Amino acid sequence: MPVALPDPREVDVVTLTRAICDIPSVSGNETALANAVEDLLLSADHLEVLRDGDAVVARTHLGRDRRVVIAGHLDTVPIQDNLPTQLLQRDGEEILTGRGTVDMKGGVAVALHLAVTLTDPGVDVTWVFYDHEEVEATKNGLGRVVRTHPDWLTGDFAVLGEPTAGGIEGGCNGTLRVEVRTHGTTAHSARAWKGHNAIHDAADVLARLAAYSPGEVEVDGLVYREGMNAVGIRGGIATNMIPDECVVTVNYRFAPSASVEQAYAHVCELFDGYELALTDSSPGARPGMDSPAARDFLEAVTAVTGGELGPKYGWTDVARFSELGVPAVNFGPGDPSLAHADDEHVPTEQIRQCAAALAAWLTAPAHGPGEKRSPQ
Amino acid sequence: MPVALPDPREVDVVTLTRAICDIPSVSGNETALANAVEDLLLSADHLEVLRDGDAVVARTHLGRDRRVVIAGHLDTVPIQDNLPTQLLQRDGEEILTGRGTVDMKGGVAVALHLAVTLTDPGVDVTWVFYDHEEVEATKNGLGRVVRTHPDWLTGDFAVLGEPTAGGIEGGCNGTLRVEVRTHGTTAHSARAWKGHNAIHDAADVLARLAAYSPGEVEVDGLVYREGMNAVGIRGGIATNMIPDECVVTVNYRFAPSASVEQAYAHVCELFDGYELALTDSSPGARPGMDSPAARDFLEAVTAVTGGELGPKYGWTDVARFSELGVPAVNFGPGDPSLAHADDEHVPTEQIRQCAAALAAWLTAPAHGPGEKRSPQ
Repeated sequence: MPVALPDPREVDVVTLTRAICDIPSVSGNETALANAVEDLLLSADHLEVLRDGDAVVARTHLGRDRRVVIAGHLDTVPIQDNLPTQLLQRDGEEILTGRGTVDMKGGVAVALHLAVTLTDPGVDVTWVFYDHEEVEATKNGLGRVVRTHPDWLTGDFAVLGEPTAGGIEGGCNGTLRVEVRTHGTTAHSARAWKGHNAIHDAADVLARLAAYSPGEVEVDGLVYREGMNAVGIRGGIATNMIPDECVVTVNYRFAPSASVEQAYAHVCELFDGYELALTDSSPGARPGMDSPAARDFLEAVTAVTGGELGPKYGWTDVARFSELGVPAVNFGPGDPSLAHADDEHVPTEQIRQCAAALAAWLTAPAHGPGEKRSPQ
Repeated sequence: MPVALPDPREVDVVTLTRAICDIPSVSGNETALANAVEDLLLSADHLEVLRDGDAVVARTHLGRDRRVVIAGHLDTVPIQDNLPTQLLQRDGEEILTGRGTVDMKGGVAVALHLAVTLTDPGVDVTWVFYDHEEVEATKNGLGRVVRTHPDWLTGDFAVLGEPTAGGIEGGCNGTLRVEVRTHGTTAHSARAWKGHNAIHDAADVLARLAAYSPGEVEVDGLVYREGMNAVGIRGGIATNMIPDECVVTVNYRFAPSASVEQAYAHVCELFDGYELALTDSSPGARPGMDSPAARDFLEAVTAVTGGELGPKYGWTDVARFSELGVPAVNFGPGDPSLAHADDEHVPTEQIRQCAAALAAWLTAPAHGPGEKRSPQ
């Protein structure tokens, strides 16, 4: 039997959050929730509804000068005996506990509530609900829509409802991984002088990493902390053999002002003289806080939530919008350090504030995408 | 149908070697060969024959002043399309090719031939043929006999017929392994400053290894080269995590003048400040070349084979005799660097020379175990 969600025209955003959390949707099992979301969106006459797999897209066509995209993923990491949700009083505030309350069904509920109830926003809005965010990047539902229907995602600015505790986190660092290899010659370890020990040679690779000072780079007014770290090391054939290879896997997180090529060149310089293999990379995303839409968003949100603007360090799906040329930020209820935690929980007031802030921004009088504002 | 070996009273030692090689006996499948060996030994009236699993022991009881032990393992590493054996001419010499010709059925054939044909040796002799040498130490057949029947192995001197190309390799280095651990604190690699990288800390561990100068230690007139080597390294949880642990496995090969305790203390000093775990250890064996029996053996062998005396670096079963207080050396036909090779082969002349040398030694006029000899 298909599950249904309560009608946002009849319940508040916290009740909707709770209902969304109580439909389990661990990555790969989003269909029931996606269907319920699609049904709600189809009930709203002002929306065009599109579907790709378990990604559901709804958009207004009001002829506004500007279009914003508001997106969130429907899936969660596995449930750890933390469903159904509970509404509790703790330390004088009301909280909602359970899987997904932070990452990120609060953000999904805010979007879904506004999608249905804001029938006449000041900008055109594209609402995106997608699957497979918590698993390998190749399965990511937003990435799939970028490949199959990039036109569904066009806009002047995008907001990803990932938890930021009501603050705004702009852009994200890029990331790349390299394998640094040393080579030796095998021999029996009883006659080590007949071989050459590749693990001993890795001493210098690790020494360069240990001595490395990561940068702090200002991009569009936000300071991004970088990082250069060994995230893996392996070597050794048998406990009586001199190893002929040692592989250090290094992860470089770099500020969004650098391209992947520039970042890789920096790593090559650091490990000059060693064999390197680039195993994966994703460009960062500039915060884009200098665009008029971003400034409007920042003003509207800080007026309601009091949240602050900061950089995002981890790679997030905002970079997918960045690739499409759409500036994007993270903004949503929930403390990001509680994401994936067994005691995941969110203050219900944060959900309400985020909904109010987004509503205020979306219903403000429209500006054209290129319109100049007076300096503040 | 039981397989049989040709009668040493009717065939030469090369023919016997070939027949022994052509009965496959990969570790764990020695029974057919052990039965055939036992049958031959039982056919000799001058021998008492004992059996434990697939280990067969035969000994004379001639009332001599001195008893020597001559031992060899019956098993081989897996066959690589290199059986049955072939007798070939190569570069002007006759060679026998095939699995076991070097490690160590040449040595087994020499022993078995002499066991049956030397009915009146100048010393009492204990002949030992055992199983499971080429696999983990806990299965070793000689180790099992040491535990269950140590009295079967008593003697004044022992010769292990492992391949030494006709030279004598005395004693063996000891060996121990330690795990050197560094500890850190996990964090997401996008926020590395919240953690502490355990792999980076291993830079100093590897630097100490790379800078280490292994010793050369003289023991009873032989010089043992030592070795201190990383044989494995592992660290890393996920490619987006700062690792909280790195483990370097170090193998120390130490001269037989040091005990395991002394060797471990040396390793603890080298890695002062780090967490160490001793995972396994085996004491070395002194060459014992200062005993009269050893000097007689050296003289008899070098007169026949022209082979030289040198140290054994790898740990071998001579250390098991050493534990029982029996000085032991390695002496047998075959180039040890061809052991386990697909093209394993032995010059047949080496097999004949080893048999002649052992026969000369065993039939020489007896000396008492403590008898003094005039200086040479």
